[in-house]
Amino acid sequence: MTDAPTDETKQAVAAARERVAALHGELVRYGLVIWTGGNVSQRVPGTDLFVIKPSGVASDDLTPENQVVCTLDGVPADGWGNAHGPSSDTAAHAFVYRNMPEVGGVVHTHSTYATAWAARAEEIPCVITAMADEFGGPIPVGPFAIIGDDSIGRGIVDTLAGHRSRAVLMQNHGVFTIGKDAKDAVKAAVMCEDVARTVHIAKQGGELVPIAADDVDRLFDRYQNVYGQNPEGAMR
Amino acid sequence: MTDAPTDETKQAVAAARERVAALHGELVRYGLVIWTGGNVSQRVPGTDLFVIKPSGVASDDLTPENQVVCTLDGVPADGWGNAHGPSSDTAAHAFVYRNMPEVGGVVHTHSTYATAWAARAEEIPCVITAMADEFGGPIPVGPFAIIGDDSIGRGIVDTLAGHRSRAVLMQNHGVFTIGKDAKDAVKAAVMCEDVARTVHIAKQGGELVPIAADDVDRLFDRYQNVYGQNPEGAMR
Amino acid sequence: MTDAPTDETKQAVAAARERVAALHGELVRYGLVIWTGGNVSQRVPGTDLFVIKPSGVASDDLTPENQVVCTLDGVPADGWGNAHGPSSDTAAHAFVYRNMPEVGGVVHTHSTYATAWAARAEEIPCVITAMADEFGGPIPVGPFAIIGDDSIGRGIVDTLAGHRSRAVLMQNHGVFTIGKDAKDAVKAAVMCEDVARTVHIAKQGGELVPIAADDVDRLFDRYQNVYGQNPEGAMR
Amino acid sequence: MTDAPTDETKQAVAAARERVAALHGELVRYGLVIWTGGNVSQRVPGTDLFVIKPSGVASDDLTPENQVVCTLDGVPADGWGNAHGPSSDTAAHAFVYRNMPEVGGVVHTHSTYATAWAARAEEIPCVITAMADEFGGPIPVGPFAIIGDDSIGRGIVDTLAGHRSRAVLMQNHGVFTIGKDAKDAVKAAVMCEDVARTVHIAKQGGELVPIAADDVDRLFDRYQNVYGQNPEGAMR
Repeated sequence: MTDAPTDETKQAVAAARERVAALHGELVRYGLVIWTGGNVSQRVPGTDLFVIKPSGVASDDLTPENQVVCTLDGVPADGWGNAHGPSSDTAAHAFVYRNMPEVGGVVHTHSTYATAWAARAEEIPCVITAMADEFGGPIPVGPFAIIGDDSIGRGIVDTLAGHRSRAVLMQNHGVFTIGKDAKDAVKAAVMCEDVARTVHIAKQGGELVPIAADDVDRLFDRYQNVYGQNPEGAMR
Repeated sequence: MTDAPTDETKQAVAAARERVAALHGELVRYGLVIWTGGNVSQRVPGTDLFVIKPSGVASDDLTPENQVVCTLDGVPADGWGNAHGPSSDTAAHAFVYRNMPEVGGVVHTHSTYATAWAARAEEIPCVITAMADEFGGPIPVGPFAIIGDDSIGRGIVDTLAGHRSRAVLMQNHGVFTIGKDAKDAVKAAVMCEDVARTVHIAKQGGELVPIAADDVDRLFDRYQNVYGQNPEGAMR
Repeated sequence: MTDAPTDETKQAVAAARERVAALHGELVRYGLVIWTGGNVSQRVPGTDLFVIKPSGVASDDLTPENQVVCTLDGVPADGWGNAHGPSSDTAAHAFVYRNMPEVGGVVHTHSTYATAWAARAEEIPCVITAMADEFGGPIPVGPFAIIGDDSIGRGIVDTLAGHRSRAVLMQNHGVFTIGKDAKDAVKAAVMCEDVARTVHIAKQGGELVPIAADDVDRLFDRYQNVYGQNPEGAMR
Repeated sequence: MTDAPTDETKQAVAAARERVAALHGELVRYGLVIWTGGNVSQRVPGTDLFVIKPSGVASDDLTPENQVVCTLDGVPADGWGNAHGPSSDTAAHAFVYRNMPEVGGVVHTHSTYATAWAARAEEIPCVITAMADEFGGPIPVGPFAIIGDDSIGRGIVDTLAGHRSRAVLMQNHGVFTIGKDAKDAVKAAVMCEDVARTVHIAKQGGELVPIAADDVDRLFDRYQNVYGQNPEGAMR
């Protein structure tokens, strides 16, 4: 049914596998994941494929080769030497790729502070300028959804479509972030935990000072556009 | 009285010693223990022996060779070249092995957040899906018990027998976890501290959103059974 | 217009580049920055130049060579082989150097606890002796100011001029510190986060015990003068 | 005035220098000190000397050779090749050695959680068994005292003399710990911060469950005596 992949596709898949394996290391470095937790994926440009972390493999054992190549239906693709099953969150990643064509990377973690806001179903208010820059306002809460069908993926897409934020706190669960590629989504996951922690601590100490809505707009606009030569800030 | 051990037993003991020494490193990596604290043990399959960390040896100095081989009475076994005394918590580990035949590994730590819940004798409520997956509900509190007889071991067994949780918060003391082997018990210790921290922080920020009991059941059931091909989730 | 630089200037620039790159590593070591965040700069003694971190380069990729040499107007200086754009906060650093001739180094971070105080626009009270030694009293809050003109730089100078503190919490933003050189400013950034954390935690637990104003004066005076043979404590 | 040191004294001094330099690394490993902060000292057995960390030397640059040999008056001793000034807290260490002959090691830090309790002048209540084992009850608060005379040393001795605890929280300042040797005092510093953190977090979450006084006594007694073959638990 499928033609043999071109050399260009083979190279793109190999590059995505390398990228996804390396970027998982950033989740470890920043303390966003423990044990075999968390997952990173990246769409393979010019194909109907994406690459995702294997299920149940410890961080130390992740290599480019054991990353799993999947179709946009969220199942392992034939002919790519997949030796492991894909992450148990693969269906949610696939739903995002099918429904948000501008998204090139997805990350999921249970990072501590973001998950703490999620356990209260409370959005993170935008009270620091770095958050205005990066997320353009509060980080929103998505619905409670259980693994096993499309409800997690649908919750992510429904919450983030048309929203400035690249991060969503899934109620009682954890964080999903999107980006123009996997690196951009990992950056969003790192920044999301950072602001979740800072704003939590700020709020424990007393009343937060809000940032005026038009200042948030100016900061977000500048970061996404004036710095437009910086390819990292430009998903939308 | 005892016959000379078979080669198979020798290999099983050597493998358990290697395993226990290596897994202690995971307690260090995840910040669950300090100084000479914490202990890991593993039952030697097919024997009446288990292997446990030596007492008072610093983490950097733990080797497969200095792990202590004990009988199920919690005393060092003859003929195994034990050069150190076993962990001061050996009696509690032994009590668990004698009374819970399905248990193959035991871990004890004073990890910060779990011990903080224990100092209030407060169970950790199940408000995040990872906790439903892993522990199937709240993490329970065991009795106040003092070292020196079977009361700690009895408190662990009384609390965990028939409970979904593989972790118990011993009041004013710390955490004990059980598993099908030492790795499974270490995973439970790592996850227990992680949820203890996340739920503590969530609760500091305001009201927690509960997860409905039947959703907890569905999550636990799926994680233990649907993922049953994964040997890590299947003690019971 | 500009004469060719003397060998002495060349050496001073090279030394400053090495210093700034190395000192950024201290921000990473103490957990004050994530991803490409934070910036260190140092005035080049005997010139109208300063050296600052490049924009958008990951911490692992910072080298002496890629640090950017700028004029006191905050633009890259010709003839120094600048291969990257300077930090997006360069205008604020330049404003400080133009208006505070005694300052030889500037640091900016979004370190967690300091930024949390900034999100409440609340100064850090001086309740520990290390803070009296280092900052001579509370760490003050500067105005809310948005990137893009001189308002951040002006806010820093207006707050710190005539103040004992070498650190200012810019409202809803983060911390700027100054020093006699970059190392001194980095030390101030490290100490600022440390006291921000300690005093936050102290305050969460109940009422703080103040230090009498004349004791703060004695501590500051001694640390700055009696220890005057130590060049690190002597900016003013 | 002084006779030339015997070979035995030379060896004892060299051993103490090595010990003090290495043990400072434990303060770094456990996150108890930043920058050039914190100090460890050890009495040289059989002499009127002790060895202490040099002043203002970064942790990375500490070597056995640059540790400072002092007399019990707290001044550098002649003939020992001292190349640096001793820690600025040397007078307090010396006062302890002069007045508590059973003490062989002293440690001082501004570790975060212990200092937070000190900023409220609040003793740490004994609500976890590890604290009963190690400190035999609450960790007490010493007076507010300013560097420059004997008042810090006197405050330490007045608070700890006749007390089970080897740690004292000096009000608005930080922690001093004592031990039979430097390693024992470092252990006390590590454990003190650990219990300061755990009990702080426990208390933030609600009401603490006390441990009955006679249970504290039993735990302390057992740890100090039954485990008496372990030389670490036996200062008194």
